[in-house]
Amino acid sequence: MYRRLLLWLILLACYSVAAIAITQQFELPRWDWEDELTTALGVSIGVLLVFRNRSAYERWWEARQQWGKLINESRNLSVKVAAFAEIAPRDREIMAELLIAFPNALRMHLRGQRDPLPSIEALFPEIANAEHRPGYISLQIFKLLNKWNRDNSLFASIRILERQANGLLDVCGACERIRNTPMVPSYRFMAWFSVLLYCLAAPWPLGMNFEWYALPIILLSNSFLVAMEMVAETIEDPFGLEHDDLRLENYCKGIEAFVREMLG
Amino acid sequence: MYRRLLLWLILLACYSVAAIAITQQFELPRWDWEDELTTALGVSIGVLLVFRNRSAYERWWEARQQWGKLINESRNLSVKVAAFAEIAPRDREIMAELLIAFPNALRMHLRGQRDPLPSIEALFPEIANAEHRPGYISLQIFKLLNKWNRDNSLFASIRILERQANGLLDVCGACERIRNTPMVPSYRFMAWFSVLLYCLAAPWPLGMNFEWYALPIILLSNSFLVAMEMVAETIEDPFGLEHDDLRLENYCKGIEAFVREMLG
Amino acid sequence: MYRRLLLWLILLACYSVAAIAITQQFELPRWDWEDELTTALGVSIGVLLVFRNRSAYERWWEARQQWGKLINESRNLSVKVAAFAEIAPRDREIMAELLIAFPNALRMHLRGQRDPLPSIEALFPEIANAEHRPGYISLQIFKLLNKWNRDNSLFASIRILERQANGLLDVCGACERIRNTPMVPSYRFMAWFSVLLYCLAAPWPLGMNFEWYALPIILLSNSFLVAMEMVAETIEDPFGLEHDDLRLENYCKGIEAFVREMLG
Amino acid sequence: MYRRLLLWLILLACYSVAAIAITQQFELPRWDWEDELTTALGVSIGVLLVFRNRSAYERWWEARQQWGKLINESRNLSVKVAAFAEIAPRDREIMAELLIAFPNALRMHLRGQRDPLPSIEALFPEIANAEHRPGYISLQIFKLLNKWNRDNSLFASIRILERQANGLLDVCGACERIRNTPMVPSYRFMAWFSVLLYCLAAPWPLGMNFEWYALPIILLSNSFLVAMEMVAETIEDPFGLEHDDLRLENYCKGIEAFVREMLG
Amino acid sequence: MYRRLLLWLILLACYSVAAIAITQQFELPRWDWEDELTTALGVSIGVLLVFRNRSAYERWWEARQQWGKLINESRNLSVKVAAFAEIAPRDREIMAELLIAFPNALRMHLRGQRDPLPSIEALFPEIANAEHRPGYISLQIFKLLNKWNRDNSLFASIRILERQANGLLDVCGACERIRNTPMVPSYRFMAWFSVLLYCLAAPWPLGMNFEWYALPIILLSNSFLVAMEMVAETIEDPFGLEHDDLRLENYCKGIEAFVREMLG
Repeated sequence: MYRRLLLWLILLACYSVAAIAITQQFELPRWDWEDELTTALGVSIGVLLVFRNRSAYERWWEARQQWGKLINESRNLSVKVAAFAEIAPRDREIMAELLIAFPNALRMHLRGQRDPLPSIEALFPEIANAEHRPGYISLQIFKLLNKWNRDNSLFASIRILERQANGLLDVCGACERIRNTPMVPSYRFMAWFSVLLYCLAAPWPLGMNFEWYALPIILLSNSFLVAMEMVAETIEDPFGLEHDDLRLENYCKGIEAFVREMLG
Repeated sequence: MYRRLLLWLILLACYSVAAIAITQQFELPRWDWEDELTTALGVSIGVLLVFRNRSAYERWWEARQQWGKLINESRNLSVKVAAFAEIAPRDREIMAELLIAFPNALRMHLRGQRDPLPSIEALFPEIANAEHRPGYISLQIFKLLNKWNRDNSLFASIRILERQANGLLDVCGACERIRNTPMVPSYRFMAWFSVLLYCLAAPWPLGMNFEWYALPIILLSNSFLVAMEMVAETIEDPFGLEHDDLRLENYCKGIEAFVREMLG
Repeated sequence: MYRRLLLWLILLACYSVAAIAITQQFELPRWDWEDELTTALGVSIGVLLVFRNRSAYERWWEARQQWGKLINESRNLSVKVAAFAEIAPRDREIMAELLIAFPNALRMHLRGQRDPLPSIEALFPEIANAEHRPGYISLQIFKLLNKWNRDNSLFASIRILERQANGLLDVCGACERIRNTPMVPSYRFMAWFSVLLYCLAAPWPLGMNFEWYALPIILLSNSFLVAMEMVAETIEDPFGLEHDDLRLENYCKGIEAFVREMLG
Repeated sequence: MYRRLLLWLILLACYSVAAIAITQQFELPRWDWEDELTTALGVSIGVLLVFRNRSAYERWWEARQQWGKLINESRNLSVKVAAFAEIAPRDREIMAELLIAFPNALRMHLRGQRDPLPSIEALFPEIANAEHRPGYISLQIFKLLNKWNRDNSLFASIRILERQANGLLDVCGACERIRNTPMVPSYRFMAWFSVLLYCLAAPWPLGMNFEWYALPIILLSNSFLVAMEMVAETIEDPFGLEHDDLRLENYCKGIEAFVREMLG
Repeated sequence: MYRRLLLWLILLACYSVAAIAITQQFELPRWDWEDELTTALGVSIGVLLVFRNRSAYERWWEARQQWGKLINESRNLSVKVAAFAEIAPRDREIMAELLIAFPNALRMHLRGQRDPLPSIEALFPEIANAEHRPGYISLQIFKLLNKWNRDNSLFASIRILERQANGLLDVCGACERIRNTPMVPSYRFMAWFSVLLYCLAAPWPLGMNFEWYALPIILLSNSFLVAMEMVAETIEDPFGLEHDDLRLENYCKGIEAFVREMLG
C-alpha cells in the first residue's frame, strides 16, 4: 500500500506544481466558480469518506471478532477434551493436531495460498486432494466426535463439544464472506472518483489565490484524502499481508500454544 | 439503474441549460433568497441522504450476512451428515440434493422467478404444486432428520442437526423481510423530493452568478445527488440483478461445490 | 398524521404571512441578533432531529425484525410439526389454528383492539375471559407440546419445538416494550419545542431581509421540520394504522398461508 | 433534575445579566478573539454533547431491553410451569411468588432500597439475612427446578425451564453493570467543563455586539446546553425516580398480573 | 496519562508563546493560506477524532460488557451448584475457590502481572507451572463438571452447568482480543499526526491576527485536542490502571462476595 500511496502522491504533486506554474505564467481569468466547485466537492467527499472508512473499519473489526471466536472455540474444545479423562491419548493427540491445523488452513485459504500442513498430512493423507481444506479438517473433527459419542466416552453429552466444533466452520464462512464481498461497487467508484476529481481541481483556484504558498495546503489535503481512501481499501479485506491487516500468524501461534499446553 | 440514471441526468442537464440561457437572455431581477434557499435545501438533503444511504447499506449488508449464514448452515449440515457414518448412502444423496436445491429455490423465490429445479423434482414431484418452494424443501429436510432420529442413526442427537436445519428457514424469512419492507415511505418521498427540488432550483442563482461557467458545478452536483439516491434505492432491495446487487448465483454455486465435496 | 401535518402547516403559513406583513408595514428596527438566533436554533434542531429520527427509525426496524422473527418461528414450528408424522391429525389442526391465531391476537393486543377470534374461540371458549390473549394462546401451545412429550410422539426431543414456542412470547414482549416505552420524554419535548420556536422565530428576520420573497423559504423549511418531527413520532410506535406503520395484516396473512400449506 | 436545572439556569442568567451590564457600562475594548473562542467552543461542545447523549441514550435503551427480557423470561417461565400439569399446586404457588418477587427485589436492589417483601418472607424467612436478595430468590427458583427434575415432574426436560431461569440473573447482572459503570470519567468532565466554559464566555462578545438584545440568545443556548447535559446525566443511570427514568414499578406490576393470570 | 498530558501541554504552550512572540517582533508577511490550512486541518481532525473516540469508547464498553458477562456466568454457576444439593460439600468449596480465582487470574493475565493465588495454589499446586492460568482454572472447572456428570450428581443435566463454564473462557478470549488488537495503525498515526500538525500550525495565523489575546484560544484548543487523543489511547486498552480504565478489582470482589454468599 505505501508504495502505491507514494506513487499517487508524487504524481499528484507534479500535477499540482505544473498547475500552479501555469496559473502564475499565463495570468488566467479568475473564475469564482472553481472555488465553489472545490467546496461542493469537499463536502461530498467528506460524507463519502466518513461512510466508506466507517464501514471498512467495521469489516476489519468483524474479521477480528471472528478470529477471536475461532480462538475461543479452539480453546474451549481443547479444555473440554482434556477434562474428559475417558478419551484415548492417541485420539487426544489427533484432536490437538486438527485444532492446530484448522486456523493455519483457514489462514492460507483466505490468502489463496496452499502451503503443505505436514503434521496433518501425516495423519490424513487424503487432505492433499481436498478442495476446501478447512472443511476437510472440520469433517475429521466431527468424525472424531461421532466416534467418541458412539463408544460412549462422552456420557451422551456430545452436544457439549459439538457446539464449539460448529463454530470453526462458522468462522470460516464469515471470513470468506468478508473477503469475497467488497463494498457496494457504486460507492467505491464514487468515493475514488470524487477524491481524484478534487485532487485534480483544487490546485487551480488555490494556485490563483495564494501562488506558490498553496503548495503545502494542496500536498497536505491530497495526502490526507488519498491516504484515507487507501486505508479504507486495505482494511476492507483484512486478511492480506499489509501493515494494517490482521496478524493471522500470531493468532495461529496463540491457538497452537494453548492447545499444546492443554492436550500436549 | 444506469439507464434510468442517465435519462434523469440528461433531462436535468437540458433543464439547466435552458435555465442558464434564460437568466442570460432576460436580465432577471437578482433575488438573494434563492441563494439562501439552495443552502437550506443542501443541508436538509445532506442529512436525508446520509441517513438514507446508511440504512440502505445496512440492509444490503444484513442480506449478505443472511446468505453467509445460509452458506454456514449448509456446510455444517453436510459436514455432520458426512461424519455420521451410519446413514444410508441413498439418504445422503437425497440430503445433498435438498441442501443444493434450497439456495436455488430461495434465490428464485426472492426474485419472483420460478424456474424448474430438475434434480429435486425427480425426487419429490409434488414440489411442482408447492406455493412456497423453500418451505417445501425445508419440510423434506426435517422429514429426513425425523426418520434418522426414529431409526436411531443419530444416537439420540437430532438436536445437533436440527439447529442448522432451522437456520435455513430463518434465512428465508429474513431475506423476505428485507425484500418486502422498503424504507419508511415518508423518508423515501422526502429524500427524493428534496433532491428533485434542489436540482430544479440550483441552476437559477448559480446561472445568474457565474453565467455559463455554472454548468459544470450544476452537472456535477446533480450527478452526485441523483446517483446517491439511486444507489440507495438499488441496494435497499439487494436481491435483484443490477450491478450493485448481491451475487446470489455465486453463493449457490459455492454451496453446491462444498456439499458435493462432502457428500458427493 | 397527514391531516395533523396539514393543519400545522396552514397555521404556520398564516402566522408567517402575518409576520411578513407586519415587518413590511411598520418598518421595525432591524435586529441583527434575530439572524444569529435562527442560526443557533437551526444547528441545535439539526442535532436533535437527526438523533430523534435515527432512534425512531431503529425502533421501527426492530419492530419489523420482531415480526420477522414471529414469521420465522411460526414457519419452523409448522414445518417441524408437519415432519413429525406421529402426531394425531386432530392435534395438527389445533396447532395450526393456534399458530394462525397468535399473530392476529398479538396484532389486536398491540393496537388495543379486541375483535373476536372465531376459529380459536370454537376450540378454547375460555379465551374470552383471558386478559392477555397472546399469553393464553402460548399457554395452549405449550400444553400441546407437553402432551406430545408425555405420550412420546416427539421421541424425547421436545427441546426442538420448545425453542420456537418460546420465541412467540419473546416477540410479544419485545413489541410491547417498543409500544409502551416512548423516546426519553425530555428529548421529545426539546425536539418539538425547538421546531416550534424556529418556526415562530424564522419569519421575522427573513421577512425583513427578503420581503415577500421569504415566504417560499419559510414554507419549505417549516414543512421539512414539522414533517421530520411528525414522521419520527409516527414510526416511534410502528404498530398503528398510519401510512408509515408496519403492515401487520399482511404478515398475519403470510403466516396463515404458510401454516395452512404445511399443516392444512 | 428539574430543580437542579432551574437553579443552574437562574445562576447563569444572573451572570449573563451582570456581564452584559458591565459591557454596556464600561465601554470595554472589543476583542475579536472572543468571537472565535465561542465558535471553537461551540463546535467542540457539539461533538462532545452528541457523543455523550448518544451513548447515554444507548444505555437507557439497553436498560429497557434488559427489563423487557426480564418480562419475557418471567412470562415464558410461568407459561411453561402452567403447561406442565404434573407439578403440585403448592409448588406452582411458590414459583408464582418467586417470579413476582424477583423484579421487585431487583428494582429495590438497583435503587439501593430494601423494603420488605412480605409474601416471599413468609415462605423463606432467611431472605432477611441475604445480602443479595435477587440472587437469593434466583437460588430458590433453581432449587425448585432441581426438585422437580429429581422427582421426574419435568420428564427429563429441565433444560426447558433452566434457560429462562438463567435469564433472571443475567438481567440482574446487566442492570448492575449499567448502574455501576458511569461514562468514561474524562469524557464526562470534558463535556461538563466545555458547557460551563461556553456559558461563562458567551455573554461577553454577544453583549458587546447586540447589547441587551443578546439576552434571549444567551438564555436559550444556555438552557439548551445545560438541559442536554443534565438529561444525559439522568438517563445514564436509568433506574432512578426522575421523570426520564424507566417506570420500573409498571414493569413489576405487568409481570405480577401476567404470572397471576397463568399460575394464580 | 495525566502526567504525559501535562507535559505535552506545557511543551505546546512554550512553543505557542514563542511563535506569538516571533510574529509580534518581526512583522512577518501575512499569509492568507495559513488560515485556510488550519481550517482544512480542523475539519479533518474533527472527522478523525470523532471516529477514533467513538471506536475507542466502543472497545471500552465491550470490555465492560465482557466483565459483566463474567460476573453473570460466575453467579449463575454458583447459584446452580448451590441448588444441586447432591454435590459433596468439599466439591462445592473447590468450585467456589475456582470461581473466585478465575477473575483474579484473568485480571493479572490481562495486565501482564503474575501475583500468586494462594487459595488456589493450595488446592492445585501445578498451577505454578501453567503458562495460561485462566485456561488452567477453566480446565479444573470442567474436570469437576465431568466428575459430577459421571457419578450422576447432575441427573444427566451437565449441559446446564457447561454453558456457563464455557462463558468464562469466552470472556478471557474476548478481553485478550481487545487488549492485543489496537486500532488500525494507519488511523492512529493519522489522528496523532493531524493533532500535532494543528497544534504546531495554529499559533502563527492566530498570533498574527489577535496578538497575545490568541494565547487562551490556542491553549484551550490544544488542551481539547491532545486530551481527546489521549483519552482515546487510554480507553482503547481498558484493562490498565489509569483513571478511565475499568475497575477490575471491584468486579473481582463483587464476584467473590456473591460466590461466598451462595457456596460459602
